[in-house]
Order: sequence, then structure tokens, then C-alpha cells
Amino acid sequence: MSSQFGKRLKVSVFGQSHGDAIGVVVDGLPAGFAVDEAALARFMARRAPGGTLTTPRSEADTPHFLSGLVDGVTCGAPLCAVIQNTNTRSGDYAALADQPRPSHADYPAAVKYHGFADLRGGGHFSGRLTAPLCVAGGIACQILQKNGISVGAHVASVGNVHDRLFDPVAVTADDLALPASRTPAVLDPSAGEAMAALITDTANRGDSIGGVVECAAVGLPAGLGAPLYDGVENRLAAALFGIPAVKGVEFGAGFAAAAMLGSEHNDAYRREGMGVVTATNHAGGILGGITTGMPLVVRVAFKPTPSIAQPQTTLRLSSGETDTLSIHGRHDPCVALRAVPVVEAVTALTVLDMLLEEKGEITV
Amino acid sequence: MSSQFGKRLKVSVFGQSHGDAIGVVVDGLPAGFAVDEAALARFMARRAPGGTLTTPRSEADTPHFLSGLVDGVTCGAPLCAVIQNTNTRSGDYAALADQPRPSHADYPAAVKYHGFADLRGGGHFSGRLTAPLCVAGGIACQILQKNGISVGAHVASVGNVHDRLFDPVAVTADDLALPASRTPAVLDPSAGEAMAALITDTANRGDSIGGVVECAAVGLPAGLGAPLYDGVENRLAAALFGIPAVKGVEFGAGFAAAAMLGSEHNDAYRREGMGVVTATNHAGGILGGITTGMPLVVRVAFKPTPSIAQPQTTLRLSSGETDTLSIHGRHDPCVALRAVPVVEAVTALTVLDMLLEEKGEITV
Amino acid sequence: MSSQFGKRLKVSVFGQSHGDAIGVVVDGLPAGFAVDEAALARFMARRAPGGTLTTPRSEADTPHFLSGLVDGVTCGAPLCAVIQNTNTRSGDYAALADQPRPSHADYPAAVKYHGFADLRGGGHFSGRLTAPLCVAGGIACQILQKNGISVGAHVASVGNVHDRLFDPVAVTADDLALPASRTPAVLDPSAGEAMAALITDTANRGDSIGGVVECAAVGLPAGLGAPLYDGVENRLAAALFGIPAVKGVEFGAGFAAAAMLGSEHNDAYRREGMGVVTATNHAGGILGGITTGMPLVVRVAFKPTPSIAQPQTTLRLSSGETDTLSIHGRHDPCVALRAVPVVEAVTALTVLDMLLEEKGEITV
Amino acid sequence: MSSQFGKRLKVSVFGQSHGDAIGVVVDGLPAGFAVDEAALARFMARRAPGGTLTTPRSEADTPHFLSGLVDGVTCGAPLCAVIQNTNTRSGDYAALADQPRPSHADYPAAVKYHGFADLRGGGHFSGRLTAPLCVAGGIACQILQKNGISVGAHVASVGNVHDRLFDPVAVTADDLALPASRTPAVLDPSAGEAMAALITDTANRGDSIGGVVECAAVGLPAGLGAPLYDGVENRLAAALFGIPAVKGVEFGAGFAAAAMLGSEHNDAYRREGMGVVTATNHAGGILGGITTGMPLVVRVAFKPTPSIAQPQTTLRLSSGETDTLSIHGRHDPCVALRAVPVVEAVTALTVLDMLLEEKGEITV
Repeated sequence: MSSQFGKRLKVSVFGQSHGDAIGVVVDGLPAGFAVDEAALARFMARRAPGGTLTTPRSEADTPHFLSGLVDGVTCGAPLCAVIQNTNTRSGDYAALADQPRPSHADYPAAVKYHGFADLRGGGHFSGRLTAPLCVAGGIACQILQKNGISVGAHVASVGNVHDRLFDPVAVTADDLALPASRTPAVLDPSAGEAMAALITDTANRGDSIGGVVECAAVGLPAGLGAPLYDGVENRLAAALFGIPAVKGVEFGAGFAAAAMLGSEHNDAYRREGMGVVTATNHAGGILGGITTGMPLVVRVAFKPTPSIAQPQTTLRLSSGETDTLSIHGRHDPCVALRAVPVVEAVTALTVLDMLLEEKGEITV
Repeated sequence: MSSQFGKRLKVSVFGQSHGDAIGVVVDGLPAGFAVDEAALARFMARRAPGGTLTTPRSEADTPHFLSGLVDGVTCGAPLCAVIQNTNTRSGDYAALADQPRPSHADYPAAVKYHGFADLRGGGHFSGRLTAPLCVAGGIACQILQKNGISVGAHVASVGNVHDRLFDPVAVTADDLALPASRTPAVLDPSAGEAMAALITDTANRGDSIGGVVECAAVGLPAGLGAPLYDGVENRLAAALFGIPAVKGVEFGAGFAAAAMLGSEHNDAYRREGMGVVTATNHAGGILGGITTGMPLVVRVAFKPTPSIAQPQTTLRLSSGETDTLSIHGRHDPCVALRAVPVVEAVTALTVLDMLLEEKGEITV
Repeated sequence: MSSQFGKRLKVSVFGQSHGDAIGVVVDGLPAGFAVDEAALARFMARRAPGGTLTTPRSEADTPHFLSGLVDGVTCGAPLCAVIQNTNTRSGDYAALADQPRPSHADYPAAVKYHGFADLRGGGHFSGRLTAPLCVAGGIACQILQKNGISVGAHVASVGNVHDRLFDPVAVTADDLALPASRTPAVLDPSAGEAMAALITDTANRGDSIGGVVECAAVGLPAGLGAPLYDGVENRLAAALFGIPAVKGVEFGAGFAAAAMLGSEHNDAYRREGMGVVTATNHAGGILGGITTGMPLVVRVAFKPTPSIAQPQTTLRLSSGETDTLSIHGRHDPCVALRAVPVVEAVTALTVLDMLLEEKGEITV
Repeated sequence: MSSQFGKRLKVSVFGQSHGDAIGVVVDGLPAGFAVDEAALARFMARRAPGGTLTTPRSEADTPHFLSGLVDGVTCGAPLCAVIQNTNTRSGDYAALADQPRPSHADYPAAVKYHGFADLRGGGHFSGRLTAPLCVAGGIACQILQKNGISVGAHVASVGNVHDRLFDPVAVTADDLALPASRTPAVLDPSAGEAMAALITDTANRGDSIGGVVECAAVGLPAGLGAPLYDGVENRLAAALFGIPAVKGVEFGAGFAAAAMLGSEHNDAYRREGMGVVTATNHAGGILGGITTGMPLVVRVAFKPTPSIAQPQTTLRLSSGETDTLSIHGRHDPCVALRAVPVVEAVTALTVLDMLLEEKGEITV
């Protein structure tokens, strides 16, 4: 099942960018939870296109719930939410059938699906599939809140412009709740201004740029997860690599840990009140695949949007000749910006899955 | 099932570092494959402890096959291989019960398992569990070879000493086959010498150090994998994070892609003979979760070994008082060195799993 | 994931009987298959309510495809089909909230979902959820046909009225294709008349009655399935028990085998043309969980519809007092009749799943 | 993974009848449970061969625990138990390579595994694989006992000799605990005598005979399981069909329900003390895939042992000629007898799996 993740809480997305609709089925939500639809709409709005830094494709992306809710309250049956595709312009893509776009999934998809893949707008590979993911993840965030767990993310870098990082020891739920109006979503507004300038400039040159999103979860109990192949890192990484354009995932100190000494990296235990905490948190809140109770910290690398207006060399498959391609659809110059709530969604869904698995029943 | 990965080819490891034995069950191996036990022994030897740069714990780690083979040929039934633990010295760990070792799984494991976890030598969390993984992976490598696919890895960095990286476009099967005698396993012997000096010096100071392992697979057909949550990156990352001490995984350009422009990062297609190739390979051989046919390239960050001889501050859980801890067991100063064949094993098992899933039947 | 089955081909149903819509997501269909929508409509019509022997609830049950098809051809992305609920009359059920209907899921669902289950019309437990299952299964039947495999079922018994059974050795694809006009779907029309009379009489008395559906698949290659826990019987039984009202599943001689001698039961091998066949087929086409190449034969027992007009004793949960309940909604007096295509759908989906798993690629 | 079942509690068996050893890995057992090895040995003894009614192959079948226990207490890591094969006589089977035994898995296994299957003694398909299953199941029974749940089974029939059935409403834990000395395990000793006479007579004629095992579980809470494809019946049936020779599974009234009226079959609710019970239990304790709190009742049909001494017609595959086969190995004339604890084991493991899934934590 390529389009599903989760064990106790299963999330299945469906749809193609230019088909009738996209959607999600979420199986395993606890019964009795009243979805706050206004809060969900605010969550969705953070991912929605339309700002000056993102694609001009503008769709309301309002989820229509087909099942799983009775008067807005989860009933235990699978929740299905559908989002209509109202603003599709397939003409943008008609010429591309024979020319796989560089660094898009066009070519491997054509091989795998023997030429029958729906490549219009990226089809099932499109970043648009993250909209239903945010429906599911927005609800997961709300349920986690009821259980004292908060999830939040920010743009850690765009190109070589860096935001400051979360304090991995002291980050609080309040720190995670950035003002919705702040675009890009950063901790340091001046970094955001520099990012905006860089993105605008890049877009004006018909180019795109990559970025890193950092996400944290606080309020997690110690003891969630499992050793070896079913731990927090395994499951969260597997789900995060399901977000289009992700090329790297690291926890805590991550790749930087590879250049550290043990004496620097080890997180010393100490007592705080009745609890056990660590003086540093290079582990990112996970040891042996299991939560330590410290903040969970993960960073996700996004490649630059492959669709760029600048002319690129490509191959005409039918003739075998090279050709020049210039992509003029509506695309984000930096996918990392709109990915912030998507990374939160995936993290929240994975954490909720593990919480349900460990506890059986949770607060709704 | 925390100790299992794979779909069509399932790998389950079991055992604790200081228990009777450790082992692996591999279900789904194609029938009719004659295991080359001598080649497997050589593969295992690359992971085995004993060199001057690794732990002095010396165990033959010879797998005993309980099932799945008839006269050395796979019969289609699950293969179970067991490795006896002959050289356990639990006394080294007796004092640690009340003092969770910093950056080990001791504390979260104690919470999760309510004080019943086997913490001796790291128990089920021990790096020793990678030995049976290498039994499975060594066999997977042999089967892949029969299908024209080679997997190889090297130590890309230790601390700030860097080996050169694989050429992601031109790397060949021969490049992947490093001489077994080369320790650390590097492409550039002079980098290996610098790493060895750094590790020796670090160990002499009672400290440890992190590193990065880079792995590549060549000969992969285009079209393996799947979009979204069940692609090559999802599955391979999930499995790689199951290797103890891994804190980051990146494919192709990885985190560096986050600082690139689309015009730099995009891999232009061109024809080569009858095939389609790319001029660069920032994708690491994967687009949309599906192989492109170019070399698969993944890098894995290992944190420094948490067990160090230098005194560390820790907590005595029973009294709540802080204390000083100095760990004198047998430990590798840099786990990345012995992780080279382990990363190959996990990569080979994951690739073989996807190949079996896609093809149904393969060459044995 | 309670609402999903399959491994390589995953089927997830969603919806509640009186919600907005019900539907199905099918992930793993081979790309490039042109769905015959007219044939699918005929398949769906066999399950549809409306006849004199079934519930008067009449809904067109036309699937609307949201994804997975491009111009009627599968594209490899998950197929989502939605069926609107247009004819819901929740008033029928309003009084039942406090009175769990005997032999319905009302009571255990109320316990499991802490009072939040949607019990209207049976909610997610309703037989209505078999409509989207038939969308998926109808497509699976078409794909199997392309691969030389036919699936068909009939009503083997209603109460004590028995149809003749399939000849487990000689049954052909033609035998499996009963005329769509024949209601109930039986091999022997005179048995059908007796069943119809019995059902009409039972319904007139405000009662319901059970029945058995027998299903066969021909054209299967030998070698599909697997030993122990993932064989044909395991997977097919697990899926068949997902049809509401099923209380027993047997393969080949089934329970009758328990009263047989080995010398009677054993199926002797003989050669037929170039193939290996058996003189009898008490195995129902499966040995050791693996197909033998002989017809697959399975029988499924359906309990009587629990909703009956006759007064029944029940419990008023709020007061703890007993009360009398008479159920006047629209219900089938014998669910086995409309279950015939449902059993075919589940069988076809399971067979297709195993075929895809074994072959990797199949004919579309 | 053909040799595994369970979700939260995963059971993987491995081994071939005439290989070095057989065994089981159980992942997900709660930590802190002290295994009663003496009670486990008594449980295993009920399955062991050696009585006058069973195969003369006599093996101690003592499990050796390689992992998962520390001083006899579960530590949370996967438990691996191995049983050596000490009494293999492969010579019995040498002549069979070219002659698939009727109603054994020999032929489909040879097809599936391209001639490489280990057919000696049934290989991985052998009933011998139920020994490690009983190790796992015996432990599961002990853990369930701590949680107030008892599981027990008896031989309901052999050929046409029937034991009385469990009272599905009033059966108690005491009723489930038959004296270990009673062989066959029946509720009515006179039925057992008639069964013994029938089996002895059948064996003397070089023949075998089928039987039915009935199993019940009491003390289950209401609310375990799930609707549709992941309910109690789905999961238990899937696992039970993994016991060699099983051809049918039914719950509660089962196939008899197909001949009942709704007015007969419906189980009326009534209050008993503070709880809700039903006056009858045709549901077998399950509605909509979820436990009702009434006793769980399941019956399992076993075919006659295919290995019989009487001459049978078979096919010589190499020449295509028919031949006569007479099987003189050591075989049970009625596998249902020794299957009694096996059915208990599978039931206990499945119930424990669902209990862990629902509750997260249970009593150890």
C-alpha cells in the first residue's frame, strides 16, 4: 500500500493533482472527539497556496467529510475527507508527455506504470496530496493537545539563510505556536525577511530553491516507541519521506553528531522536580527508538522545486533527441515554506499512532 | 513487531547482547539459492570485532542455520540463523542498573518495560544485534549479485576527516568492492589513515567519535518502489534507523539539496546506448519514491559511541542524587567503522524486498 | 486498520449506512486496465436491493470514481469510488439508541466506542458497506478474466432448502456464470423456487432466515499462496468473515471432512494432458495453503438477518428493564441472496492479491 | 510473511520437520511476566506424541529459550524458543520425492518452490510446527489467566462420534480445564471411549479419520475486536487455518445458523448483576467482529491425516505414470486429538493480541 502509513492509526491518501478530487481515509481515530473545524481550517490555511511567495494556483481546499463523524464528533468508523480539485489547468502539462521533467517522478512513474501513470500536475506524486494529509494531521494535532502534547515546526533554512533552531531542551508549547501571519514561519523574523527576499529573487530568475523544516513535539511521555525497526525514528522518517521533495531526515544533533565526540554528545541525566531530564538533548528526545520525555526534534531537508521556468535540457523519449524545456505552470519557488504544517501533520499523526498503540485509550 | 522489517522479504532479529544467543529469521527468500558460506563468512568478518580500532570483545559470530536450508540451498521455508553469545562478561554492567548510561537506551527502556528490560550490554538494543542482520544481508547481497545488482559502502567521514564520496553517476560494481583488508573501509587510503589516527587518539583519551557511512547500489532497474509512503526512501530510511546509533539518513544530495537552486539540482536526462540516464544524480537514484535506474546513493550519520571511559555525570535513580560514571566495558570508539557492512546489509535486504515485490520471481 | 484487507492489493472501505456516502479505496491495481463500466454496473446490480425477496430500500448505488482512473483506465494510483447515500430514513432507528437490537453489533459497538458509535442503520457495520466492496470486487473479476481466472457463486442453501453444489472437479467458467435474471442465484432453478417460497413465507411471518453461499474459482495456477498463516485459506477466510452476518467458512469438503476417512478424503493425482489433476477435490483446490490448480471451492454460512418484525425481548440499558422490540425498517429476510456477488467480490480480490504477489506483473 | 500472525503480538514459527530444529519468535509479550515453566511443560505434553492413539515418533519437545527471558521473566525483547529435532528418520520419505502424496502439500509446494521445497516429513508444512506454536500459546494462556481469561478446548467429534458441546452461555473456566489424563480430551468420557475405539480400529485398517475441535474462551471483556476485516472472527479464523489439516472454522451457531430463523437465532439481552448478558449465545460471543462479553465459541474441522498405510493411487511425476503408494512413516490416525492444545494456543495468542491492542497495558 504505497499511499498509506501508520499502524494503529492508519492514514491513506488518494487522488491525482488534476483528477476530480483528492482525499484521505483515517482509520483508528478514537471515538468521541469533537473536531474543531474552525481550528482545522486555520491549520489548512497555513498550507494553502496563494501568498506572494507561493504558487498562484488558488483553491479553497475545504474538506468535505463523507464518513467517520456524526455531528462533528468522531464515531470510531474510518473518517473520509474529500477535497475537490476545482482549479485544474491540464493544458499546462499536455506537451510534457514525451518529455520527462528533470527531477520529477515522470520518468520512473512512466516505467513503473507502463506509460499509464497520470502525470498531469504530478498526478498522485503531486505536493497537492499533502492537503488531505493536513486534514488528518490537523485533527491529530487537536487530539494530541487534549493529551498535553504540542507539535510545531518552522522553516529552519532556505538556501543559505538560516533561522535560529528550537532550543532542544527548553522549547515549550508556546514556542511552537508561531503567529499564523508570519510568512515564512520562522522563529526569528529577520531571518524570515531574508528568506522572503531570497525566494522572490530566485523566483524572478525563473529558478527555485531548497530548504529545511525543523519540527518539535513537547509533552511526550517517556517510553513511546520500540527498539530496532519500529521505533520513533523509523516510523517518523518513513512517513516524512512520503512528503514530496524530502531528501533527508535527521533527529536531534543528526548529521552534526557524526562530527562530535562522545564526551560532547552524551546527554547527562539530571532530576527536575519529580522527573528525569537531560542537560542537553542531542538525542532529539529519542534513545533506542523510544522517547525519553525530552522534546522530540527532527529536521527535514527539501530539495528545490524541480519545476522551473529557466530552460532545461531534457530528452524527447520518442525520438531519443535532446530538447529544451521551460516549465511555466504554477509552482512554489520553495516548497519548504508550505511544508511547515505538512511536517507537523506527519509528526502529529505518527506520534498519535504510537500513543494509541502504547496506551490503548487516550483522552478525547 | 519492533524487531522486524520488510514486506515480501521479512527479517526478524532476536536476542540480547548477554543472553544465550542472538539470531535472525528471514522469511521470503526465493527457493533454490545456494548460499556461498565462505563468501558469507567474509562478509561477516568485516563486521566482526577484534581489530585495533574496535572493541576487544572477540567472538567468532559463526551463524548456525536451524532452518530454511537443505544442503546449503534455500528451500522456501523461513531461514533461521543463530549465533551463540560466548564471550559475555555481565559483571561489567552490574553496577549500572540504577544509573542509566547517558545517551544509551537504558532509561527509556526501563520506563517502557517497567524495569524488566535486559540492560546487560545494551540487551536487545545492542549493536551486537547487527551480527544476525549481516547474516541475512550477506545472503541478500549474494542473491542481488545474481540479478546484476551490487551494493557497497564506505566510511565517508569520522569526525571532521572525510573520505571522498562515490561518484553518483559513474560508480561501478568494482568501485563498490573495497579490499577487505582496508580498515577503515574508505575509497581514499590516505583518508583512512587520518581516520585511524583520529580514532586511536580519541580512544586513548577515553572518548568516542561519530561518523558517516555512504552506501550505493548499482544495477538497479528503473521502476522499483512506489509513491508516497512505501517508496525506496521510506523503506530504506525506516530500516536504516534500526541500526543502533543512527541519527540521520539522506539520499542523493540530501541536506545539501536544501541549499541548492533548482537549476543546479535538477538532473538532466540524456540517452546512453538504449537507456535513459541523467547527467548528474542529485536524486540519488530515486524520484517520487521510485528508482530511476541511476545508482542509489544514501548516507547514514552515526553518533559517537555513548559508552566512554571518561567520567560522566549521571543520576542515581533510587536516590535521585547525581553521581559520576566511567564506563569500562569493551566498546568501539567509532561505531561507524563496523557499521559499513551493516549498512550494506540493510540496503541489500530492502532492495531485494522491493525487487521480489515488483518481479514476483527473480534469478537464483 | 479494521476496514482494510489485502497485501499487495489493499482494499479499504469507509462510510456509515446513514452518513453522506460510502466508498472504497483500492491500492495496488495494475496500471493500464480499462474498466468495463457497463459490466461493473451489471455486477453491482446483482447486489442491489429492490427485488421482491429483498429490502425495499432502493438506491442506484452508482459509484463515482474520484481517483485512480484516467479516461476509464487504471493509472496505478489508488482508485477511490464513492457511492452517495440518498435514501436514508434515520427515523426508523431513533428509538433504538437505548435498546441494543439482539444479534446486531449495537451493544458491543457502544462498548467499544464509548457510546459514540454511529448505530443508524447499522452504521459502519451495515451490510450496505458491501456495495463499495462490490465496486472493487467487480473490477477484480474483470482483471482476473483477462488472466484466465473466473469466479462465481450461488446460493447453496436457504434454511433447509438446498441447491446442488458445484462439481468441485469439473466446474467450468461457464458453470460459474449464472443468468443475471435468476433470483435467487442457484444452479437448480427448482431449488430457487423453493427458496423463494420459503423466504416469502418467512418474511410474511415477520421473520428472517439464514443461508449458505458457495463460491468457486477456476483457472487458477498451481502454486499461489503460502504455508501456515498466509495461505489461501487464511487470507480468504479472514476477508470473508468481514462480510456482515458470516458465521462459518469452509473449504473443499470442509466440516464434512471431519467425518471422513483418509482413504475416502484423499485426492488421488493423475495426469490430464500436460497437467496434473486430482480425481476428487476434497481439498477445495488448496493444500498446505497453496493452490493445487484444481477449482478453489469455499462455502460461507450466513446467519438469519437479525432485524425482524416479530416482537423480541430486549433490554433498556438506561433503566435496566426488559422491554419488547419490533423492528420495522427495511431489511432483507435472507441476506445470503444478495451476498452472492459479495462473496465473489471478496474471493476475486483475494485471488487477485495473491496473483499479483506471486507474479509481480499480470495481464491487463 | 507466511509463517507469522498477530499484530501487536507477533508469532513467527520456523523450521522443517526433519531439519535441525524448529522454533518460534514471539514479539510483543508484555515485560515482567514470570513464565511458569512447569505449567508450560504440562501444556506442551498435551500436544506431544507418544500415546497409543498417536504417532510413535517420540520427542521430548523441550523448548530452549534463546532470548526474551531473564531468569524466567519476560524482558520485553522478542522471545525465541527452539526445539531440537532429535528423532528424524528421513529414510521414510526418500522414495516420495517423485511421488506427491495425495492430500499433502508436496505437489503445490514443489510447484511454488520450483522443486526446492523440503518435503521430508512435510517440511515446513508439518504438524510438527505446532510444537513451537504451543510454546507461544502456552505462555499466552498463562498471561490471559492473570487477566481473568481462560481458554479451553475439547474434541467435539471424531468421524461420526460426537462429544457434547460446551454450554455457550454457562461454560466456566472450570469447565474448560479438562483433566490432563483424559485422552481424547472430551467433556463426556463415554464419548471419548467411543472415539478411542473408532480411532484404534481405523488405524488398524491402515486408515485415518477426521475430527472437530471446539474451543471456548471465558472472561473476555466486551469491546475487543473491530468491525469488518480486523475483527475477532477474521483474525482468529486466519490463524486457525494456519494449523495443518484445518478445512473449516465456525463461530457460535456457525453453519447451523444458516438453517435457523431469526426468531430462533437472535440472542436476547438481559441484565445479570451489573452486567449485560444474552439468554442464548448463537453469536459465539462476537457481534460485528467485537466481543460481547459472552463466551467466545469456535469450532475447527480437521480433515483425516493424509498419510495412510492403505495403498493409494498416485502419479510418478517424472514418467507421468500412475503408481501405488503406501505410506509407512509414523503418523497420527486422527490429528484432531493432538490439535486440542494447538487450537487453544492459537486462540489464546489471538485473544492476547487483541487485548494488548485494546488495553495497551495488561496485568502481568
